Amino acid sequence: MLLAYAIYFAAPYICCMTLQERDKAVLWHPFTHFKFSPDPIPIVKGDAVYLVSENGDRYIDAISSWWVTIHGHAHPYIAEKIFEQAKKLEQVIFAGFTHEPAITLAERLISILPPTFAKIFYSDNGSTAVEVAVKMALQFWWNQNKLTTKKKILAFNHSYHGDTFGAMSVSDRSVFTAAFHEKLFEVVFIDPPETGNIENIITLIEKDDESIAGFIYEPLIQGAGGMKVHDAALLNRLLQVIQQNNIICIADEVMTGFGRTGKIFASEHLNVKPDLICLSKGLTGGSMALGVTAVSGKIADAFVSDDKLKTFFHGHSFTANPIACSAALASLDLLQTRGTADQIQMICEAHAKFAGELKTFGNSYNIKNIRQQGTILAFEIENGKDEYLNNISALVTALGLKKGVYLRPLGNTLYIMPPYCISNAELELIYIAIKEILIEIQTPS
Amino acid sequence: MLLAYAIYFAAPYICCMTLQERDKAVLWHPFTHFKFSPDPIPIVKGDAVYLVSENGDRYIDAISSWWVTIHGHAHPYIAEKIFEQAKKLEQVIFAGFTHEPAITLAERLISILPPTFAKIFYSDNGSTAVEVAVKMALQFWWNQNKLTTKKKILAFNHSYHGDTFGAMSVSDRSVFTAAFHEKLFEVVFIDPPETGNIENIITLIEKDDESIAGFIYEPLIQGAGGMKVHDAALLNRLLQVIQQNNIICIADEVMTGFGRTGKIFASEHLNVKPDLICLSKGLTGGSMALGVTAVSGKIADAFVSDDKLKTFFHGHSFTANPIACSAALASLDLLQTRGTADQIQMICEAHAKFAGELKTFGNSYNIKNIRQQGTILAFEIENGKDEYLNNISALVTALGLKKGVYLRPLGNTLYIMPPYCISNAELELIYIAIKEILIEIQTPS
Repeated sequence: MLLAYAIYFAAPYICCMTLQERDKAVLWHPFTHFKFSPDPIPIVKGDAVYLVSENGDRYIDAISSWWVTIHGHAHPYIAEKIFEQAKKLEQVIFAGFTHEPAITLAERLISILPPTFAKIFYSDNGSTAVEVAVKMALQFWWNQNKLTTKKKILAFNHSYHGDTFGAMSVSDRSVFTAAFHEKLFEVVFIDPPETGNIENIITLIEKDDESIAGFIYEPLIQGAGGMKVHDAALLNRLLQVIQQNNIICIADEVMTGFGRTGKIFASEHLNVKPDLICLSKGLTGGSMALGVTAVSGKIADAFVSDDKLKTFFHGHSFTANPIACSAALASLDLLQTRGTADQIQMICEAHAKFAGELKTFGNSYNIKNIRQQGTILAFEIENGKDEYLNNISALVTALGLKKGVYLRPLGNTLYIMPPYCISNAELELIYIAIKEILIEIQTPS
Repeated sequence: MLLAYAIYFAAPYICCMTLQERDKAVLWHPFTHFKFSPDPIPIVKGDAVYLVSENGDRYIDAISSWWVTIHGHAHPYIAEKIFEQAKKLEQVIFAGFTHEPAITLAERLISILPPTFAKIFYSDNGSTAVEVAVKMALQFWWNQNKLTTKKKILAFNHSYHGDTFGAMSVSDRSVFTAAFHEKLFEVVFIDPPETGNIENIITLIEKDDESIAGFIYEPLIQGAGGMKVHDAALLNRLLQVIQQNNIICIADEVMTGFGRTGKIFASEHLNVKPDLICLSKGLTGGSMALGVTAVSGKIADAFVSDDKLKTFFHGHSFTANPIACSAALASLDLLQTRGTADQIQMICEAHAKFAGELKTFGNSYNIKNIRQQGTILAFEIENGKDEYLNNISALVTALGLKKGVYLRPLGNTLYIMPPYCISNAELELIYIAIKEILIEIQTPS
């Protein structure tokens, strides 16, 4: 017998250890320093906007667990749909076969995407959705002419599109990527458009149009780069010039998709529509990993050919996983109700009111640059350092947890991005906690 | 109200369309040519080794749906565990928080991995597990000296490690990657070891040891490259030299993990143990996407530092998704039983017997290079062309489907890799189908 036969027995020492001790013995957490990061809090239960710890502490998840949870945690409707699918067909190779959850999800996405969108390509997360889009943009030109000069990608400074090598390459160079810089492919970076720089940016693009294949951008708000908001009119003008210069537009809506900016997709705020849209995070209601690259007819047509080499040779084993597609369908059911639309509207209005209050009292709170984009509210804490590794972030998180609110500033950028099922009273608890924190960090006890 | 309020109604035309027509209208399938690929077969149900189509046709999934399905489709035990978890805690940000499914899964994996393994880093699929491993190998040296000369990755010719830019970079250049070659980082490629070339390979490595950071390899069998089997003793010798030259070894066990080669991990067949192991596919029993990069203590220690820049800045939103971790725990429960061990043994023996038969009658079947690695059996069909785009693949698939067996040759390499729950009689059906196909393709009707 070749396979070692073994029933798993928990090692006896495990029963004497806390979850935290067990975690530290075997786990490596993402974006987490082994020495300086506080011990992780064991969560045993999700309950709508609340995360419930092993000790029974309840935390309002004010950032929707890295911006994914849109209908609240452990939603029973999504759980039921997942179970139904898992019992029926959990997975099938998606080359040569198809299944209804993948088809229906694609139809529903296309019905709410801009009218030029024709095809859905599935993958497993936001990084892979971006990798697929960048590869499609490059191959679009290669398929037309294998000696094409259109090979460069254009991206924004402060952008973040993911952590795989392609996604890192099209993201701003930063402390995140320092160890890998020489392995990243070259990208043309431009500043996000402002009144003072837009004409220069346009000149640069018009000069380089023969070498630029595609442009990737987070529409209206750059997430991990610090919740930086762009002016819609200026971005529109820039996108117009980019499309006129025959450059493929890739909208990374991994964060902004599914209602975050007040519309289903942030691209709806803009007149110029992209050629490719990347989706993940809220796609499954935040219940599990799934990525989508939505493709316009123009892009897809470049892959219809008599030449087999023009095939898009990309695929992951779990492409269009039926369970994840069913979770996404359930999430869309919940998203496309009057109730959720009203909730999003309520969050937008409550944020606007709170933003007004912060602006009035901004000086006393030592904050600046208060801005809102739909359900996202952000501002900077003025402590002299605008950077990701700013210690203020850990302090705000710790103070928030004591008040039952989970916040995770990006450096000194504090933001709120709650699940849509939050109540007005729970939002108020977040606002009160933030005001208390802002006072406390000025007068450390 | 900002969000368009819309209940989804299926467009009226949809009800008049077949699933296949609906699929073709909106979907783009992985590794699938728009013109030449046959229409995808709609699957409505999984039933152990069978995929059941919309028409009620039943196909034995002889390749475990891209090598993922180890316990059969729609396993009720895995479905129950998924449901339990989805109702309790579907997802929580894995920076700052932890949860029991992630901890227990890490403990169980470490208990069956080589004893040097200390930490588990989660991601979402095989490509991301590889990207994480390559990044850790590079940063291992960078953390010790930011001006390190150890920056190159060493890999095998014919290797395949995934489709994201980092994973493509460390894979052999091929038709898969032709459109992206100039965006891939440079890698030192060597031939897999054979008696005739091993000394030359060793000389090359010893000369270049100061510049090579890590070596990535599929232990014992290269999957997508054509199920190419290596000699264990020669690979051992090579790995020994590589480790003596201070090069980090990354075993890509995405395909070989979880019993495929007759042992839980292919690395168990080798004396030299890697520093990093990549896992996915069978990890969740093939039920949904999840990736693991298992890390030895030596590698993890290089990230423990007073310098915040030495943090591993990598993470995906759904890192350690509780539902996927629970599916993986359920799969391990099933894997670590006497019954599954016996099944794997039965498959190995049945394959060996069939391989013997093929060898005896090889000439009449026009096949060559019959080889077996545990539950994987492979050979080439001699039709003059050894390449992925060989038309013989589509023909074999079509003939197999008519006989109720799903096969998907890699070019002219036909292989079997069944779910472990297959019966001896069902294996026999696959063997008979293959023998019939081999005769039919010689005398086309």
